[in-house]
Amino acid sequence: MGKNVRVVVDAMGGDHAPGEIVKGALETLETEKNLQLILAGQQKPLEAELSKYHFDSRRVQTVFAEEVIEMAEPPVAAIRKKKNSSIVVGMNMVKKGEADAFVSAGSTGAVLAGGQLIVGRLKGVERPPLAPLIPTARGVSLLIDCGANVDARASQLVQFAQMGSLYMKYVAGVKKPRVGIINIGAEEEKGNALVKETMPLLKACKDIHFIGSVEARDIPYGAADVLVCEAFVGNVVLKMFEGTSSMLLGQVKKTLKSSARTKMGALLIKPALKKTLKSFDASQYGGAPMLGLKGLVVKMHGSSKAGEVKNSIIQCCDFFRQDINGKMSSQFAAGQAGN
Amino acid sequence: MGKNVRVVVDAMGGDHAPGEIVKGALETLETEKNLQLILAGQQKPLEAELSKYHFDSRRVQTVFAEEVIEMAEPPVAAIRKKKNSSIVVGMNMVKKGEADAFVSAGSTGAVLAGGQLIVGRLKGVERPPLAPLIPTARGVSLLIDCGANVDARASQLVQFAQMGSLYMKYVAGVKKPRVGIINIGAEEEKGNALVKETMPLLKACKDIHFIGSVEARDIPYGAADVLVCEAFVGNVVLKMFEGTSSMLLGQVKKTLKSSARTKMGALLIKPALKKTLKSFDASQYGGAPMLGLKGLVVKMHGSSKAGEVKNSIIQCCDFFRQDINGKMSSQFAAGQAGN
Repeated sequence: MGKNVRVVVDAMGGDHAPGEIVKGALETLETEKNLQLILAGQQKPLEAELSKYHFDSRRVQTVFAEEVIEMAEPPVAAIRKKKNSSIVVGMNMVKKGEADAFVSAGSTGAVLAGGQLIVGRLKGVERPPLAPLIPTARGVSLLIDCGANVDARASQLVQFAQMGSLYMKYVAGVKKPRVGIINIGAEEEKGNALVKETMPLLKACKDIHFIGSVEARDIPYGAADVLVCEAFVGNVVLKMFEGTSSMLLGQVKKTLKSSARTKMGALLIKPALKKTLKSFDASQYGGAPMLGLKGLVVKMHGSSKAGEVKNSIIQCCDFFRQDINGKMSSQFAAGQAGN
Repeated sequence: MGKNVRVVVDAMGGDHAPGEIVKGALETLETEKNLQLILAGQQKPLEAELSKYHFDSRRVQTVFAEEVIEMAEPPVAAIRKKKNSSIVVGMNMVKKGEADAFVSAGSTGAVLAGGQLIVGRLKGVERPPLAPLIPTARGVSLLIDCGANVDARASQLVQFAQMGSLYMKYVAGVKKPRVGIINIGAEEEKGNALVKETMPLLKACKDIHFIGSVEARDIPYGAADVLVCEAFVGNVVLKMFEGTSSMLLGQVKKTLKSSARTKMGALLIKPALKKTLKSFDASQYGGAPMLGLKGLVVKMHGSSKAGEVKNSIIQCCDFFRQDINGKMSSQFAAGQAGN
């Protein structure tokens, strides 16, 4: 038996809250024996939801937070004003050491702002990046940073590479994670000012297995395990991946329904096609970890259902079982020499 | 009858040169009655190719250039050294006024460098952008800039918006082109430093119909007719679009071949699916125009076949028929007030 991992789950965030969130959280208790669950949300809907299930009440705590941060609210102001929202209440528990991790499908802006302002950075970390896992033809890649720190500096990108490498090695189980920097060409002289400045620093970094530039065209094929980039670029990569996939698959589906002939064909290919597309379903990996914090914050998709909630909580358990924050702290304290 | 348009075609550039290039160029003579064709390339292979066709020799001129710029060569050095390459020879003809436009499927770097260094900018243009047309669920969008000017400034992005708007209006026939800036969120406060600086300038620009931020997720759905961005971001958008499409469609094709059952289904859906996917084939729009030059340079895909060559040359004819450069000149000379 390992140490208990205490995960606060924002029961109110996302399109399917609280139903799917509570369902996924309670399901995780069965597989994660060291999990202690804390559900934060409005008392009435939360209790109504919990009353539907049987569970070990010693492993589930509820914390009531009656305010709700809306998706459109300016994040920093919302975090400061709504002290009694599930996001602020949950993150404060992590800050005070009453919980290890916080998981939410709520406003991305508020979760990122809360991670920085409430939970706070690990010592030595310049900026905490948001790092979603994206499915590829080869498995999965960690995209770091994808929205937390626009206009980041070169030294920050090097830390992203180090954090991402630790995460992929110990949480995703990739033996020697290939770290690439997203660039507009493979040649040495290509890139913008930031990439050109970062490149020699990544080459010199002993903690990582740096493989050089990765062109965006090769990202969906799994060109690197850790994709380092500034947040504006990372956000564009993630959203283009999601938008292009959903648009194209939508067109394919429409075509399959377009005539009696295609409908018959669709019946024949559906089971196989479903299986193929399932491997590109991002929810199977859980939400995006925000790394470099005194604790862990995981941002799930707004559309998360029980499966993604469960996978996000499992991710938190793995993170603490592997003591990623301990490893990061010693790496950043020791500088380039340590590992 | 309008004025003749003289287009130099780089017969040596691309994976299928000179065969497909010459074929596409000669085919265009049939539909574009004012086209004067100039084919630049190595004498032997070019003459061998031409000998296969019957054509009106008064409308086709050959210019011999024995050097070839390879894809991997550093572009600026290649342009300076290989004076007798088809790219340099062809662009020099545009510069000297012996031709109106230059079309090539050769090295992107060399074409961009040549556009800037040989053909040169129109008066008032700060930086000439490369602007590919990308197919969307709604039609087609112009992505400007997608690789010519990394780390561009806000004033340059405003010019991109103006040039792109003129192009979409007069060449693509979009009545009131919707101009959006690629951003990481729709809210006013979102963006990196460049986007935040550019936003009010675009709002104040009277020449364009500015619709605000466009998130990358909405690009494949055709969220704007003109997508303004800095070149690094534009390149990532284009390559993610191409990479995600080709990877996903590759997976779908593999699935269709995976069993006897799916193969039978594939037979039923193939004709309809082919038709759907054809509308996402970028080659039907021709290559990417490099705008803001004293002339026109069109960069085709390296994999271009006759169809893309033909569409690129038609694009050149439309460009001069509509006097886009005249319109740009008067817009930039008159500043924000003119149109």
